[in-house]
Amino acid sequence: MEKYLLIAAFVGALIALAFVLVTYRRVMSFDEGTPLMQKISGSIREGANAYLKRQYTVVGVFFVCMIVILCVMSACGLMTWFVPFAFVGGGVFSALSGYVGMKIATAANCRTANACSEGLNRGLRVAFSAGSVMGFTVVGLGLLHISGWFLLLRYGFRLEMPDVTSVLLTSGMGASAMALFARVGGGVYTKAADVGADLVGKVEAGIPEDDPRNPAVIADNVGDNVGDVAGMGADLYESYIGSVISASALGVAAFSGSFEAVVLPLVIAALGIVCSIIGTFMVKTREDADQRALLGALSRGTNCSAVLIAVLSLPLVYWLLGKENLGMYGAILAGLVGGVLIGKITEYYTSDTYKPTQNLAAQSETGAATIIIGGLGLGMMSTAIPIVIVAICILLAYFLSGGAVSAGMGLYGIALAAVGMLSTLGITLATDAYGPVADNAGGIAEMAGLDPEVRQRTDALDSLGNTTAATGKGFAIGSAALTALALMASYIEKVKEMGATVDFADFSVMNPLVLVGLFIGACLPFLFAAMTMNSVGRAAQSVVKEVRRQFHEITGLMEGKAEADYARCVDLCTKASLHEMIMPTVIALVCPVVVGLVLGYQGVVGMLAGATAAGFLLAIFMSNSGGAWDNAKKYIESGHFGGKGSECHKAGVVGDTVGDPFKDTSGPAINILIKLLSMVSIVFAGLVVSCHLL
Amino acid sequence: MEKYLLIAAFVGALIALAFVLVTYRRVMSFDEGTPLMQKISGSIREGANAYLKRQYTVVGVFFVCMIVILCVMSACGLMTWFVPFAFVGGGVFSALSGYVGMKIATAANCRTANACSEGLNRGLRVAFSAGSVMGFTVVGLGLLHISGWFLLLRYGFRLEMPDVTSVLLTSGMGASAMALFARVGGGVYTKAADVGADLVGKVEAGIPEDDPRNPAVIADNVGDNVGDVAGMGADLYESYIGSVISASALGVAAFSGSFEAVVLPLVIAALGIVCSIIGTFMVKTREDADQRALLGALSRGTNCSAVLIAVLSLPLVYWLLGKENLGMYGAILAGLVGGVLIGKITEYYTSDTYKPTQNLAAQSETGAATIIIGGLGLGMMSTAIPIVIVAICILLAYFLSGGAVSAGMGLYGIALAAVGMLSTLGITLATDAYGPVADNAGGIAEMAGLDPEVRQRTDALDSLGNTTAATGKGFAIGSAALTALALMASYIEKVKEMGATVDFADFSVMNPLVLVGLFIGACLPFLFAAMTMNSVGRAAQSVVKEVRRQFHEITGLMEGKAEADYARCVDLCTKASLHEMIMPTVIALVCPVVVGLVLGYQGVVGMLAGATAAGFLLAIFMSNSGGAWDNAKKYIESGHFGGKGSECHKAGVVGDTVGDPFKDTSGPAINILIKLLSMVSIVFAGLVVSCHLL
Repeated sequence: MEKYLLIAAFVGALIALAFVLVTYRRVMSFDEGTPLMQKISGSIREGANAYLKRQYTVVGVFFVCMIVILCVMSACGLMTWFVPFAFVGGGVFSALSGYVGMKIATAANCRTANACSEGLNRGLRVAFSAGSVMGFTVVGLGLLHISGWFLLLRYGFRLEMPDVTSVLLTSGMGASAMALFARVGGGVYTKAADVGADLVGKVEAGIPEDDPRNPAVIADNVGDNVGDVAGMGADLYESYIGSVISASALGVAAFSGSFEAVVLPLVIAALGIVCSIIGTFMVKTREDADQRALLGALSRGTNCSAVLIAVLSLPLVYWLLGKENLGMYGAILAGLVGGVLIGKITEYYTSDTYKPTQNLAAQSETGAATIIIGGLGLGMMSTAIPIVIVAICILLAYFLSGGAVSAGMGLYGIALAAVGMLSTLGITLATDAYGPVADNAGGIAEMAGLDPEVRQRTDALDSLGNTTAATGKGFAIGSAALTALALMASYIEKVKEMGATVDFADFSVMNPLVLVGLFIGACLPFLFAAMTMNSVGRAAQSVVKEVRRQFHEITGLMEGKAEADYARCVDLCTKASLHEMIMPTVIALVCPVVVGLVLGYQGVVGMLAGATAAGFLLAIFMSNSGGAWDNAKKYIESGHFGGKGSECHKAGVVGDTVGDPFKDTSGPAINILIKLLSMVSIVFAGLVVSCHLL
Repeated sequence: MEKYLLIAAFVGALIALAFVLVTYRRVMSFDEGTPLMQKISGSIREGANAYLKRQYTVVGVFFVCMIVILCVMSACGLMTWFVPFAFVGGGVFSALSGYVGMKIATAANCRTANACSEGLNRGLRVAFSAGSVMGFTVVGLGLLHISGWFLLLRYGFRLEMPDVTSVLLTSGMGASAMALFARVGGGVYTKAADVGADLVGKVEAGIPEDDPRNPAVIADNVGDNVGDVAGMGADLYESYIGSVISASALGVAAFSGSFEAVVLPLVIAALGIVCSIIGTFMVKTREDADQRALLGALSRGTNCSAVLIAVLSLPLVYWLLGKENLGMYGAILAGLVGGVLIGKITEYYTSDTYKPTQNLAAQSETGAATIIIGGLGLGMMSTAIPIVIVAICILLAYFLSGGAVSAGMGLYGIALAAVGMLSTLGITLATDAYGPVADNAGGIAEMAGLDPEVRQRTDALDSLGNTTAATGKGFAIGSAALTALALMASYIEKVKEMGATVDFADFSVMNPLVLVGLFIGACLPFLFAAMTMNSVGRAAQSVVKEVRRQFHEITGLMEGKAEADYARCVDLCTKASLHEMIMPTVIALVCPVVVGLVLGYQGVVGMLAGATAAGFLLAIFMSNSGGAWDNAKKYIESGHFGGKGSECHKAGVVGDTVGDPFKDTSGPAINILIKLLSMVSIVFAGLVVSCHLL
């Protein structure tokens, strides 16, 4: 039975990848546009390729070091010999997800621009197809990876189930580490280029965005691809497999001897893939559709997938776990609904069709300071409802799945809620990932001097993308919190397995080890946010200096007679971001080990709880502040409070610039951080149990 | 024995108040200066008096409502009849501390300005004496209050010790509630007036700070007194008695039957008063002293007090608790040293004599956005070391005082560390509170048209005050975290007392009730910061509109021919801040009860832990960001990066304006919040234990 279910999951993964192939061909069948467009797109592709190549080299060195450490620990008997391989596997697949996303995005940007010159709907189709390629690559590779390992270890090497999930958790650590590198590196790259290009180009030189005279313009567009696409791909790959793996691992602990619960998360994931593919066929609209109709088409797709999963997972749970465990279905549903609700709240706080962002825009009337205060207040305020939603999700998932009788069942329920929340990832990621493609298409339209109407259409697509991205972020953050909790529970299981005599009372918040761990854990997201923001600041300043230098030294640049040295800015951003991505990741890896060695496993559990709570809040705060500033600026640009060029607009630009690292570097990276901390803790649990100070 | 110790503490309180009286007379013996100075000082005093009168009226209504609730609960047998009285007593004494501080500050401002016209040292003496009046009023009233209740309940009503401390915890709640009103109301007042005056006066009209033509100038100076003085007085009164009361309460639980441990915190407080008074006599310098010498004089005073306490509390602990409990001395010392270290770190991050603030000032070169990003990054980064210091403090205090053997002893040790940290409050508050006096003196010098040299001297005193204020904030935040932990422990004792069968495992972070409570608790400081920042934004905007109106409608105002309608701005700020202070305080009071009723006492403990960790981090982050922006602006004004009026300076002003509500409204209010949450939880523990949902 269990074997056939695993094969079914494997087949689900193959279906996703087949769908990717078909969609990829469709995207490539569109026309690339004029030779100039092809040339610009080529430069962007080249820059992105060069960046990823160097990123993978740097990360490769890190992975080699980790492999040596893991091999030594395996040799000492602290873990099995599969661990190093699983670690590398997770990292490689995560990187691959990002790479495929970047590949399709840099191929689709000029095609989208060209399609937009024929019509808005046609543009949407190309961009959304490109997003689909990425979305289904992530889920397809993710499920392929997990089900493949399961089949290999269980039927190839005949491992016991607890050992299988234990190995899989290591592959999650590899994926998380890769994701953090990609998010931080890409995030610093894109925002340094963006802030640098804007500060000198828009503010000092007074030329429009994406003007070809701006030396940082190619770097800015490369940044969209390496940060918002490749970084996001690696990030969501990590979230996706993290939720499935942690649920499987807790299934082992909750249902001893019966493995249906262990493979259920994989089957739900496979079901989600099929439902999401069906959903993508709902995304079409009339040729003369306006923006509202387009948004309707996208929502129809995601809603349809969600409803299908909600309906179909009921018989699935009934069949696999029996009538007595039907409460688990409630947990899945709680996750699914919770994700949608958090997405809606995020939209409410960050979209300029609602009061909060409109009020924020109004605060620009008294200058930059008040719009900054307002945006920070808005972001902090916006944490309240999501936290209540997550709290209700946790309680429902825990108690519906029988937590009152057995804590293990309840914790498994929480993990299932995370799986439910991410089950529609294929299509939500598609609606999310098409945004940067549209953004790039706009840049190409501008640089290639296409008709202004084309730019208007790409802008319409882009602003639509902002709304869908907000929803996507809601899912990512909500699932991160639930997954982190599930991983905490897995950690405790692991500690027990390592031979420690664990009592529930050990983890009391009145135990000073737990308490001190909690304090330190809560500090980590703050520290991490500070480091990434400072990185963006430093990198942006070096870009600013280079752009100023080029404007100063290249004669005829402002008149359009000479060409800017784009490659130099690309190179500068690459170097700076690779340099800046190392330290935060190392901290994320070292902290759990150090805390564990000093405070013991009680301290680690406290640290994980603190990091999850504070990280969740900080991630929402930063994402929503950033999103609201961005849209408040757009709201002003659309003609309110004086429109473009007014004093209010200048204040709005300050807000947007502050928000850039908030929403695209620090915020998303914190999501990964909280899971990576747990994964690292689990992998090094053996070391901590066998030697610690207090 | 115990009785004599209590009498000794009572006498210590009387000594403090006698010292206050003597110092008050000395301040009043100085000359008030010219009739114009007296008139300006009179207007400020009048505005501050009017504000406090209305604030006390509003708060009075709230207190009456609370008394009714508490009386009903007493009648239901959920608490003793002493509780309502203790609650009112705490509130009245807290208010009184603020009132006396305001009284002396508004009397000393013109005297300081006048003394500064004679010399810097003379100015320091007046301002520091005024600060001493406030500092020793706070500690004197605090200790009088606690020892008075002890004597009354123990020897008047012959109550059992656990009942005595239980009643005292309620008086702590009264003090905290009053402090929150005063901090939020005063904080909104002062920052609304400040931001409003600056935005229209400095930025739009281009007139200097404290120019008499600015209609908000009196409101701005009133704000310093009601926010930075009266608000701070109530705030630190609350911190002071909170630390002593929570330590006493835990002493009952830790040492059953022997009450030396219960009164030890009071005796340490009395010892601290005597040592602090001795310290004040060290604050003197030569007549021709420069700023460095002045800072040296202030440091000598605080250091001398700290060393005296460190030395004298060793025999005290030995005598009262015996040789076997000498580890408690280690706890006191850990607190004392920890407080000093956190103060030093705060100074490092916020003073312009160190790299962080200088680098922040440099980020103004690329505009407002980068200095905002930099300041936020700096503040978040600055949380790391204080959290490690507090962590070490907690572990040292816990394990040195025997926590490994008995958890109760360890928790008592943590509470003692907080008492140790605040034992020098008399003198640290004196060095802190003289800042606003000097600030006001500068305003009066400007408005009264005194010699520019006088303004330079008051500015020197003011900037010195910034450094000492940073140290003071370190103590306040550090002690808040330790006190909150002690109160958490007291809460659990209280729950046990109420008849719940409590197991340590109930408070495991893997218990979903605790976990959900943790999430909600961590969210509260964010929510609270958002509310207070939005309040400042709203109130400031109404001030901006009024000032603009006056500039527009009063003919001859800009030419200095007509007088501005100061009273109207004062009135506007009063109304706005009283209106804005209600909601945050109500939330702080309602949340623990609602969380308790839904999630039970496990949820409350989770909430307290989450609020303490997140609140500590957010308070440090916001205080330090704000302080660094303020000093970065001053650094630019002192001639770096183009000096006053340059583009860099404009960017610096934006940073400073954002920092204002950070450091003077939201940050300090969070400190009170985390303790108020615990106090409310304790008072309503009976209700929660007898009826809750989950």
